[in-house]
Amino acid sequence: MPIYQAPLRDYQFVLNELLNIYQRDDLQGFEEIDAELADAILQGVAEFTTDVMLPLNGSGDVEGCKIVDGEVKTPTGFKAAYQQYVENGWATLTSDPIYGGQGLPEVVGIFATEMKTATNMAFAMYPGLTHGAYAAIHAHGSDALKQKYLEKLVSGEWTGTMNLTESHAGTDLALLRTKAVPVGEGNYAVSGEKIFISSGDHDLTENIVHLVLARLPDAPEGVKGISLFAVPKYLVNDDASLGCRNGVEATALEHKMGIHGNSTCVMVFDGALGELVGEPHQGLRAMFTMMNEARLGVGVQGLGVSEIAYQNALAYAKDRLQGRALSGVKAPASPADPIIVHGDVRRMLMAQKAFNEGARALVGQQALWLDESHRHLDSGQKKQAAKLAALFTPIVKGFITDRGFNACVDAQQVFGGHGYIHEWGMEQFVRDSRIAMIYEGTNGVQALDLVGRKLLSDRGEALTLWSDMVKPFIAEHINNEAMKPYLLPLMDASTDLEKATGFISGQAATNPDIIGAASMPYMQIFGITALAWMWARTAAVALQALEEGVENETFYRAKLTTAEFYMNYWAVQTRSLRKQVESASLQLIGLCEDDF
Amino acid sequence: MPIYQAPLRDYQFVLNELLNIYQRDDLQGFEEIDAELADAILQGVAEFTTDVMLPLNGSGDVEGCKIVDGEVKTPTGFKAAYQQYVENGWATLTSDPIYGGQGLPEVVGIFATEMKTATNMAFAMYPGLTHGAYAAIHAHGSDALKQKYLEKLVSGEWTGTMNLTESHAGTDLALLRTKAVPVGEGNYAVSGEKIFISSGDHDLTENIVHLVLARLPDAPEGVKGISLFAVPKYLVNDDASLGCRNGVEATALEHKMGIHGNSTCVMVFDGALGELVGEPHQGLRAMFTMMNEARLGVGVQGLGVSEIAYQNALAYAKDRLQGRALSGVKAPASPADPIIVHGDVRRMLMAQKAFNEGARALVGQQALWLDESHRHLDSGQKKQAAKLAALFTPIVKGFITDRGFNACVDAQQVFGGHGYIHEWGMEQFVRDSRIAMIYEGTNGVQALDLVGRKLLSDRGEALTLWSDMVKPFIAEHINNEAMKPYLLPLMDASTDLEKATGFISGQAATNPDIIGAASMPYMQIFGITALAWMWARTAAVALQALEEGVENETFYRAKLTTAEFYMNYWAVQTRSLRKQVESASLQLIGLCEDDF
Repeated sequence: MPIYQAPLRDYQFVLNELLNIYQRDDLQGFEEIDAELADAILQGVAEFTTDVMLPLNGSGDVEGCKIVDGEVKTPTGFKAAYQQYVENGWATLTSDPIYGGQGLPEVVGIFATEMKTATNMAFAMYPGLTHGAYAAIHAHGSDALKQKYLEKLVSGEWTGTMNLTESHAGTDLALLRTKAVPVGEGNYAVSGEKIFISSGDHDLTENIVHLVLARLPDAPEGVKGISLFAVPKYLVNDDASLGCRNGVEATALEHKMGIHGNSTCVMVFDGALGELVGEPHQGLRAMFTMMNEARLGVGVQGLGVSEIAYQNALAYAKDRLQGRALSGVKAPASPADPIIVHGDVRRMLMAQKAFNEGARALVGQQALWLDESHRHLDSGQKKQAAKLAALFTPIVKGFITDRGFNACVDAQQVFGGHGYIHEWGMEQFVRDSRIAMIYEGTNGVQALDLVGRKLLSDRGEALTLWSDMVKPFIAEHINNEAMKPYLLPLMDASTDLEKATGFISGQAATNPDIIGAASMPYMQIFGITALAWMWARTAAVALQALEEGVENETFYRAKLTTAEFYMNYWAVQTRSLRKQVESASLQLIGLCEDDF
Repeated sequence: MPIYQAPLRDYQFVLNELLNIYQRDDLQGFEEIDAELADAILQGVAEFTTDVMLPLNGSGDVEGCKIVDGEVKTPTGFKAAYQQYVENGWATLTSDPIYGGQGLPEVVGIFATEMKTATNMAFAMYPGLTHGAYAAIHAHGSDALKQKYLEKLVSGEWTGTMNLTESHAGTDLALLRTKAVPVGEGNYAVSGEKIFISSGDHDLTENIVHLVLARLPDAPEGVKGISLFAVPKYLVNDDASLGCRNGVEATALEHKMGIHGNSTCVMVFDGALGELVGEPHQGLRAMFTMMNEARLGVGVQGLGVSEIAYQNALAYAKDRLQGRALSGVKAPASPADPIIVHGDVRRMLMAQKAFNEGARALVGQQALWLDESHRHLDSGQKKQAAKLAALFTPIVKGFITDRGFNACVDAQQVFGGHGYIHEWGMEQFVRDSRIAMIYEGTNGVQALDLVGRKLLSDRGEALTLWSDMVKPFIAEHINNEAMKPYLLPLMDASTDLEKATGFISGQAATNPDIIGAASMPYMQIFGITALAWMWARTAAVALQALEEGVENETFYRAKLTTAEFYMNYWAVQTRSLRKQVESASLQLIGLCEDDF
């Protein structure tokens, strides 16, 4: 069975040393958290995820979910684990204290999510989707609706789902057909079929609150005629007790490549009663306000699975004896050297390590921007943070899931043939992490969002905000000789990003299709540069710590080595990607559809 | 169910227009084949694979193999399909006519393999391994052994296996423990446990010939003490009838990520009777002589699965309606445009197409070199071809399976959420193609073989042979303005390859670990440059055809567009990869094992 050691030391580094969150007196509620409290919470989650969730990951994958008598049964052990999860209060971390939440910052909560995803992505999706439903009702629901649902969703006693996709309407929600007809007293009868509904039905809780996109009878066509409804599995009486079974059912489970422990359902709504969340025809806008958080949650899945895959590859590389180092025998007492002596195995491990730690720092930064966008006492700063978070949302989702999947493939490769066999768990990591590139907007959609909405529509304002953070950082450190190995590659990558941005901006008006064609290599340049920025900042912190004298020098020296590796292995990729951006029109002008 | 259209036109292009195989009077036996015959054979294989093998691909994946009463049962339909395969004579294409084979060139046979792999990789492995066993006995067996086994292996009435790996001995065969004790009359009793044995047991044929690596009692330690044995499942009487069940059994089936239709077995040999193949202690050498063919066979798996994945992604992209083109509505009568109008979808499709067609050309070239190494009438040319084939063996295996897997991931991505669901078949292509990066020597081992054995041990001789083909080609066309878009990028990539080669050669003596650390980005540079060469040659042929006037201009124009896309999207990657090569020592000097 795969091992897992929660990267608690790295969380401390990101929270305390890199982002300095305990010094933030300009963020509402941050005064209530200190290092001791955050450490204790993350330690608690580390124990729960490692002891309870991890042992169910492989068995949940093999057993999967099934429909028995019209209801979904989750894999053996999931129900008991979920009860324990709720009883321990892990469901409540970042939710609103008014409804029983602990009100913790996102920047702390996000690392709890990383550990949950790492140890059992399929299981973690049940509370993950619940949090999305909570956030939608919290942001847009009427007081009555909040009263009805939020406490149960916050505690985890009930779970939530997001019902968007229909078989003919995925990315293009304008095409969706599910209908909602008013039936009086603020109720609507919702009818239609939804597919790919994660956690759509299950046996973990007594009730499930479905958030459903549907059209009212008078709705205009397209995305402007979509409304959002809350449709419970069991109707809720005025005294908060459960009433009748509502007209919604999971009619089938999708047979998927991975995340078998999560029930991905076809949901049929047959006049199911629900209430409007927010204004009529404003459903898509209501969904979009939660998007930054939801997409960060998926980005973290890319990181979490990549982290556990890396840890297991590392352990295997130290343990597996095969061949001898090219520079001479390293373990003379053994029949062969451990494979970590081999250069290409090291290359794969270092690539994973450099990606994971860089991605973790970026995830922390993004979560902090989200916190700032909600909690900053200065409204100008609040708006700026919101702009930055919006800019980085597609990068965190698209880049981290993309490269996280690749890292899982590399980790699997370290195991050789054993990586292809189920019992080692590595092939499950590859299968599970694959979905994160697809759902919550495919990574192609993320790239288009980045270029179309976050760059061009915004006339580069958000990008300028970010450049105005990067440039002073470079200026501050450029005269420090020790920082040069990190800053020069960051500057090269930034130049490539700038030129690629200029190229697209210059072409977009006359050749709009180039926006799509260039978007993926552009997002990769951006992601690589963003991680280079986090690594350069990490190096600055590490150099200062070493200069000032620290007990555990090894940790900081490893950060420096890994930062340098990142710059020489990862950051150098921007040059070729920029050439792909600059030749992107070739895909478009080239072939007629029939000539492929 | 996935569709498949065998790329017969592209086979014609590679065989007739690019490689001109029908004009080769300097290769023994090539005079017996002309375009009409080759077309007819490939057409026949296309029909068989599409009509018989493809329908069993998805069902075989779901059903998998099982052990019933000590024998492996293959999925429903496999046995009947295999019988038809044998009856149609498809097993015999490239085998020696003395034993019933058709003696066709490898360069024709390899495309039959592509179609078999594309339509049903798991099924294709049964005859694939058989051909390996045939080749080993054909090259190294005694006349008696050849008499005993070859006809049945050629016809496909019996299948063969390769038993190398043990649980502690994968890449490092020096560690293997299986024993062979002489028991008189040229027989040996073989005992030990082998794992990951593809097609190890099944119900397709009445007998199976296992080729087994084992140690004789007096064997020296390490790789110099390994011998090769032929061990049948049923002993063969002198009158060629089947005798007793031999002491070999599949005791378990591995639970794998993919290729479920192929039985990957744990094989236990318990005093099983076998005969020596070749000389005592020379088993590894015997295996190595078949390596070029075996690794080409695996490289083609990367291409085959990538091709069918691409075809399905293309069909889906033309059919699936979602969103509108950024440059304006393209399908006004439909509720949305087909997704092929979107730039990023096109990017993925073009990347796959450019890879597949380039890889197919390289596979053809490699097969032709193998043919030349066996059949050339001039012994000097024969040797040169052998050197070139040896050089390109790790590239064809390592690069094509690596990028072929990535192409399958891209093809899956085109399907969005539907790509993650079993019924569309795309996720199976990803799972199946993944193994090709691992078996027959992991791709890391291929990269090490390329740098260590094919480049450094050889002092660059093989590389020079190849350069001496590329340079005159460039010189011949460089004054043709129309060729510049293809030649300049090829020259850039070649320069990167040259510099990377120089860097590694210069460092290897003082810093041997760099050979391993730099090997994977180096192999990628080589693979990308090799395909750039094939694409530049393709462009030259296409330009000439268009100049001379052809009926179907579209085919040649599409080749030119795709060639240009390859140069701008693929070939540009060498610059960043070269930087990875040049900083490869950072992985090595950096971290102590404990500091990861």
